Amino acid sequence: MSLTQLFEPSGIAVVGASQTEGKIGYEAMVNAVRFDGPVYPVNPSTEGELFGREFVSSVTEIDGAVDLALCCVPGPAVPDVLEECGEAGIGAAVIYASGFAEAGEQGEELQDAAVAVAEEYDISLLGPNTSGFIVPALDLRCSFASGVEEIPEGNIAVVAQSGGVGLVLAFQSRRQNRGVSAEVGLGNRANVGFAEAIEYFDSDDRTDAIVLHVEGTDDGRGLLEACRESETPVVAYKVGQSDVGDFAESHTGALTGDHELYTAGFAQYGVPTVDATDELLDAAAALGNSPAPDGPNVGVVTAQAGPGIIITDRIQRAGGRLPELSPETQEQVDEILPGITYADNPVDTGRPMPEFGEIVTAVAEDDRVDIVLVYELFEAALGFPVEDLDGLAERVDKPVLFATEGIEESMADERERLRDVGIPFFETPERAADAAGALARYARLHNDGASGSDPVPDGGADGEPQGTAARSLEVRLDE
Amino acid sequence: MSLTQLFEPSGIAVVGASQTEGKIGYEAMVNAVRFDGPVYPVNPSTEGELFGREFVSSVTEIDGAVDLALCCVPGPAVPDVLEECGEAGIGAAVIYASGFAEAGEQGEELQDAAVAVAEEYDISLLGPNTSGFIVPALDLRCSFASGVEEIPEGNIAVVAQSGGVGLVLAFQSRRQNRGVSAEVGLGNRANVGFAEAIEYFDSDDRTDAIVLHVEGTDDGRGLLEACRESETPVVAYKVGQSDVGDFAESHTGALTGDHELYTAGFAQYGVPTVDATDELLDAAAALGNSPAPDGPNVGVVTAQAGPGIIITDRIQRAGGRLPELSPETQEQVDEILPGITYADNPVDTGRPMPEFGEIVTAVAEDDRVDIVLVYELFEAALGFPVEDLDGLAERVDKPVLFATEGIEESMADERERLRDVGIPFFETPERAADAAGALARYARLHNDGASGSDPVPDGGADGEPQGTAARSLEVRLDE
Repeated sequence: MSLTQLFEPSGIAVVGASQTEGKIGYEAMVNAVRFDGPVYPVNPSTEGELFGREFVSSVTEIDGAVDLALCCVPGPAVPDVLEECGEAGIGAAVIYASGFAEAGEQGEELQDAAVAVAEEYDISLLGPNTSGFIVPALDLRCSFASGVEEIPEGNIAVVAQSGGVGLVLAFQSRRQNRGVSAEVGLGNRANVGFAEAIEYFDSDDRTDAIVLHVEGTDDGRGLLEACRESETPVVAYKVGQSDVGDFAESHTGALTGDHELYTAGFAQYGVPTVDATDELLDAAAALGNSPAPDGPNVGVVTAQAGPGIIITDRIQRAGGRLPELSPETQEQVDEILPGITYADNPVDTGRPMPEFGEIVTAVAEDDRVDIVLVYELFEAALGFPVEDLDGLAERVDKPVLFATEGIEESMADERERLRDVGIPFFETPERAADAAGALARYARLHNDGASGSDPVPDGGADGEPQGTAARSLEVRLDE
Repeated sequence: MSLTQLFEPSGIAVVGASQTEGKIGYEAMVNAVRFDGPVYPVNPSTEGELFGREFVSSVTEIDGAVDLALCCVPGPAVPDVLEECGEAGIGAAVIYASGFAEAGEQGEELQDAAVAVAEEYDISLLGPNTSGFIVPALDLRCSFASGVEEIPEGNIAVVAQSGGVGLVLAFQSRRQNRGVSAEVGLGNRANVGFAEAIEYFDSDDRTDAIVLHVEGTDDGRGLLEACRESETPVVAYKVGQSDVGDFAESHTGALTGDHELYTAGFAQYGVPTVDATDELLDAAAALGNSPAPDGPNVGVVTAQAGPGIIITDRIQRAGGRLPELSPETQEQVDEILPGITYADNPVDTGRPMPEFGEIVTAVAEDDRVDIVLVYELFEAALGFPVEDLDGLAERVDKPVLFATEGIEESMADERERLRDVGIPFFETPERAADAAGALARYARLHNDGASGSDPVPDGGADGEPQGTAARSLEVRLDE
């Protein structure tokens, strides 16, 4: 199945479009008309116009190219609507309605009926039970949710099992000035699941990292294999460590399943896992905006000791390690800043100073270091060492992460400049350390021998492959 | 020791004030002159004015009331400066310089000398090796750090072992539109330590919760007893779970110590602990802006299932539990929204709707619920149920927490209104759940029998008193 008609449609039909504000058929239309291509409101019982587009009575009546139908109709009407879509040559549909497989036996039958039609006509179905998707670069906002028109373009594809969590992640990416290449809520995954979405975004030029929100799936093998095939880095957030029972079942029709088995399975297939929405986006920002790390060794440069201790502690717990710097680097650091507070790893300069960028460069050039993390409280008089960091990650071919705190408005320009020179940016010491930890785990999972030659840190190893558990998941997945 | 002269000075002397931009003596002066009281630049080798204040050659020459000296002089000069302060009747001093107890034997001797003078004259010493402190309500900005003038007033006192982490927390509190009643970096704690600071802020009218950043202390007993005595809720962030070795030692002269013993000790003395700076401020926002919770039972209302699952899972792991709602409440919920997506706990309305506030009220009124957490993705057309939430927490005498995501600018006014009616606000599902978890742990630690009558949740119990471990810490503390 190709998802081209879903994510790159020639035109859009909004089936069940409504002139009544607040209705899904209205809200979906508000967002859809931003698309720079034909958008047709479809409703047999409405005449006239909506946002300057004339209503048509059926998708079969549309005179023009339409690849995608946004189905704003109640669940029971869906199979018939899909039938018409098939006849009209529409190859993709979003089904917003709930009341399908997540809602018991009758719903399952309804979903089966919808899938049968979709298969007959080769239609890609997103949903049912989803808030839809967006592709900001195409101004494709196929969602009924308010605010999605403001989500900026970025280079991370968000693939969420829950449409609600997809939006949570999209809004967060905006708050963090990052944006998304796409945000997709899979919902019940009638015939577009994780595997299909990962495959599509792996080949998408605008996507540099893929994040997954997973509640549970009965196609674990497909999901994991798509992850392994993906050249684009994938990070996963598997929810449901404790018992969320009935409530989860009632949601997207999937048990949350066994958390440990999923984590081990992801590790075995090269996917680091995380434990929160903000951590997921941070890990993706690090992976999607950096050269791939060769190993888990983090060199930390900090202008203040306290945040440095937090970062050091946290990186070790997250699967990274802080190697001793080479004697040459230590000497160099001592030459740049004689009498520096702490010249080993982390390097603690005591305060930001004009030489801060030189110190970062020296640490980044150390062969013992695979990943660089820089922390400083912002000093307006000094700013950030943007000139020194410009091109550094590329030149040393290592990720260079930056975190700071200060007055947002004073830092905004400098932060923008950092982003422009390709340095991913994080909001707190812990979040920066967690991102470095995700890079370290990614390196361990993707560099043969790396985890063999490096001692596994105490208490870390979140993302380490665990042979037995991973095998159990495979057995499970084969059942 | 009273800290009145430190935190409520009549006037301030900036000793070592400098006309050279970038020097600590200049930067401290920039911030100090915002104070609405006399501020004197003191420097024997400088004449003329700085920011319209005439230089004096020594604190003993000041003609006016001065309680507080900000010592911007190098370490070795500190004992003499304190001597003069004592003679001038100054009762409090901040020592910014490093090179004291954290820096080996010679530094220890220097610190001992400073403390001896301070004891002779009864001077409260903040530091050495600190960035200072701020009290926004008095526009008292006794720090050399840039940006501290912008930190707004709030009701949380930040007491950090590291001056750098104190600033991290202060800047974060600003980003979250919360502010602080005070931010204090204790540094080496020469004679103002955790115990003294907690005691002061417990009796401070502007402070409704106290947060601690702890690396390690040799006065564990004093710290814990001050926590127990405090009527103001205290939350602690003990850093250093993994080995941060030498680097921590070189910082504030304190080993990071044994994390588990600290956690158990805090629990035994009624202090919930957390694991990140943002989590610390979130827990304080919940505790400082809510009635005290009677138990760990959380009622969750969500407008979207996906975030609801995340919240449910996370609350249970954080020490809270989700009780079944009473039959009356379930019936009421069904009446308000017939055919609701999920009518038990969490209550899932499927989308925000005009009745959302009524549902929240019904859950809040349920006797089985001790803490209420509400999540909704923002819909501009509906806004937040501010009217329904106005006064609700007070009326039901329970914490009511709110979390949302959406376009920041669209939500700003509504969020402000929520805050005005006393509803603490959180940025992500996980952070809201963690705050509810901190409330639940606080309730378990402060309500006798609560943890006996409520089953301890699987995998949670972070903050549970652990008899044996706590006793070991006591033994340790007595050594």
